[in-house]
Amino acid sequence: MDDTYLQKFLSDSARRAKRSEIRELLKLTARPEVISLAGGLPAPETFPVEEIADMLPGAMRKFGANALQYGTTEGDNGLKEQIIQMMAEDGLTGLTPDEVMITTASQQGLDLVSRVFLAPGDAMICGLPSYLGALSAFNAAGALMNGIPLDDDGMPPEALEEQLKSMRERNIEPKLLYLVPDFQNPAGVTLTLPRRKKILDIARRYDLLVLEDSPYRQLRFTGENVPNMKSMDEDGRVISLFTFSKILFPGLRLGWAVGHPDVIARLVVAKQSVDLCTSALSQLVAREYLKTGKLPAQLERTRGVYREKCEVILKALDDNIDPSWGVKWTRPEGGLFLWMTLPNGLNSKDLLTHALEENVAFVIGNAFYCDGGGSDTMRLNFSYPSKEQLKTGIERIAKAIKKLLEEQPA
Amino acid sequence: MDDTYLQKFLSDSARRAKRSEIRELLKLTARPEVISLAGGLPAPETFPVEEIADMLPGAMRKFGANALQYGTTEGDNGLKEQIIQMMAEDGLTGLTPDEVMITTASQQGLDLVSRVFLAPGDAMICGLPSYLGALSAFNAAGALMNGIPLDDDGMPPEALEEQLKSMRERNIEPKLLYLVPDFQNPAGVTLTLPRRKKILDIARRYDLLVLEDSPYRQLRFTGENVPNMKSMDEDGRVISLFTFSKILFPGLRLGWAVGHPDVIARLVVAKQSVDLCTSALSQLVAREYLKTGKLPAQLERTRGVYREKCEVILKALDDNIDPSWGVKWTRPEGGLFLWMTLPNGLNSKDLLTHALEENVAFVIGNAFYCDGGGSDTMRLNFSYPSKEQLKTGIERIAKAIKKLLEEQPA
Repeated sequence: MDDTYLQKFLSDSARRAKRSEIRELLKLTARPEVISLAGGLPAPETFPVEEIADMLPGAMRKFGANALQYGTTEGDNGLKEQIIQMMAEDGLTGLTPDEVMITTASQQGLDLVSRVFLAPGDAMICGLPSYLGALSAFNAAGALMNGIPLDDDGMPPEALEEQLKSMRERNIEPKLLYLVPDFQNPAGVTLTLPRRKKILDIARRYDLLVLEDSPYRQLRFTGENVPNMKSMDEDGRVISLFTFSKILFPGLRLGWAVGHPDVIARLVVAKQSVDLCTSALSQLVAREYLKTGKLPAQLERTRGVYREKCEVILKALDDNIDPSWGVKWTRPEGGLFLWMTLPNGLNSKDLLTHALEENVAFVIGNAFYCDGGGSDTMRLNFSYPSKEQLKTGIERIAKAIKKLLEEQPA
Repeated sequence: MDDTYLQKFLSDSARRAKRSEIRELLKLTARPEVISLAGGLPAPETFPVEEIADMLPGAMRKFGANALQYGTTEGDNGLKEQIIQMMAEDGLTGLTPDEVMITTASQQGLDLVSRVFLAPGDAMICGLPSYLGALSAFNAAGALMNGIPLDDDGMPPEALEEQLKSMRERNIEPKLLYLVPDFQNPAGVTLTLPRRKKILDIARRYDLLVLEDSPYRQLRFTGENVPNMKSMDEDGRVISLFTFSKILFPGLRLGWAVGHPDVIARLVVAKQSVDLCTSALSQLVAREYLKTGKLPAQLERTRGVYREKCEVILKALDDNIDPSWGVKWTRPEGGLFLWMTLPNGLNSKDLLTHALEENVAFVIGNAFYCDGGGSDTMRLNFSYPSKEQLKTGIERIAKAIKKLLEEQPA
């Protein structure tokens, strides 16, 4: 930004903040002829628009003006009850209301945790790669991020422990470990059960808070469910974030955080100065929708859509990417994304230039690396494009890869 | 909070943060027999519940799933157009879309401005008293607040300039001046036009950003409109915050900020890590409601309700508080609050004890003083209680004052 005259007024946090590279990129790729696998949008055809449009006026009239007032910062008690029941059905049983708070979607959870637990110069750990919005929140707080390379089963506990040992030798005590255990954004990989247990054990031994970010957990379309980390938390060090963005629709800006009552109390105090309370209208929609009992069928439909789309993109990749090229990609069991790695350290930024010529877009992986690495990686979204677009999009990406490979010196 | 074991994990910002004293107090006064003039809630009987319940399903169906997706961080363009038109009708003409951003209500505007422009140790200026939620946001950022005592016409420019001179002599350069020019919360006073001009001139000479917080501007029920400060801003130093909380309903969590495009750009980057974007559902409600052209009538009705309630509380005060007692109060021309000052330095906390015995509650003024002062002041809300409650509430407060006065040594 060319606002030099503003510099004297800016906080350190504002000086550190960068415009989201992905958002800037998406603007460039907005030509209608471009098939974009770059976004991170859930499939709009899954949003229960009709059901909510049918239900909402009655609910507004039934609960009246007082349901549209300022609410408590913690969130609506009726919605919390519904959430506690939903969490119990997912194996996280016995939650009390003071262990739950409603958030203005998951991103606010990331921001609140960053504000409360991370000060400038505080060390923390995340995956290589990690969700960009989380990195932004940690960066805004001034945290120093240390990355652990992920593999097909998520974060290797051995690498985590090695990093922690090395940090301890340098007298660095990281405060927080950030994980997306299920169908990670951007890598699409899932942390296995043995790894979850090992990582929790490491977190106990090194006294780390664990931030479990779970926006996609309900979107498993194949494979077996793995318990969330909060359900294995023995000493209240896990803070878990969930959202309605992928199970109803993102425009609600509605999510929830689960944690030890003392942790939730601190997050609530921080939220008071951030936005006072979460939208009463959104809370009304979610609470009354959950009460109808329609969510399980809604989720089943949604998983069906994502399953089919994922099968289409994987088949297109198998059909179009020649194994001899050495390109690799993950095979997600849920969520919205898969992750591709180019051979021989080829740069995905160079590939993007060719891809845009072919009228297809993706996100370069580099944006998700807190250490500036990942130049040979890229994220593909399969939730938003149609099946036809996914097929054609991958054909175009394959052409672009072929071109890039042909440019390489033998 | 008794969470000593958490201390090692807390950020400085979290250590500074206090639970809102008002919110804690409100919990104590929640007995049904207590008439509360302590809250800050708009009058629910003014919320256009029926109109929005009628309109919303059609709008949801018309704009479909894509209107319920993630949106841009800046906000919906159609809503911005409606807002630009509304601002023009209020005398702030010629705004361009890059001078406007949608916020998750005013409190988020306060938080974003604090994050972008205030770093720990930065000096700033506010009124004595000032809105508690603003003080929380400035405190979370670590700003050092310097207060200027307000009188019946808002902030005296002479006192402001004197304070700035004295700070300059001590090499302190404050960055920001915070004002609620119209029907200030908590004092209920309005900054006169000559003062607005003088203060803007001082801000230019001392190179201060001016944060104009205008949640109540549309709620003038008597007296003459004074132009907002943004409309007199010659060099882009005014940032103005507005909200739908008082013109539609607070449960939307929807507001907007107006500022120089460079300032807005910085606020947008900060918002990306805070909550990505504002609720698409709330933006849809506001945009389609504004399009119906029903807002002017809605505002006229709302002003009527507030005018009547303000007349009732003022009459009850005139009827019940003996002039010989020396109690003073402001006579607001709009908004939700009036401000009372006790004689002889009597403490409003002591009065509250008596008041609760009489089953009536208010907020002690001390909570609104960044310098710990104001112990002889208190805020009375007249928007939320019914007219009957206002009348009875003031009778009870008068009894409590009488008791307190009788306890004083002669």
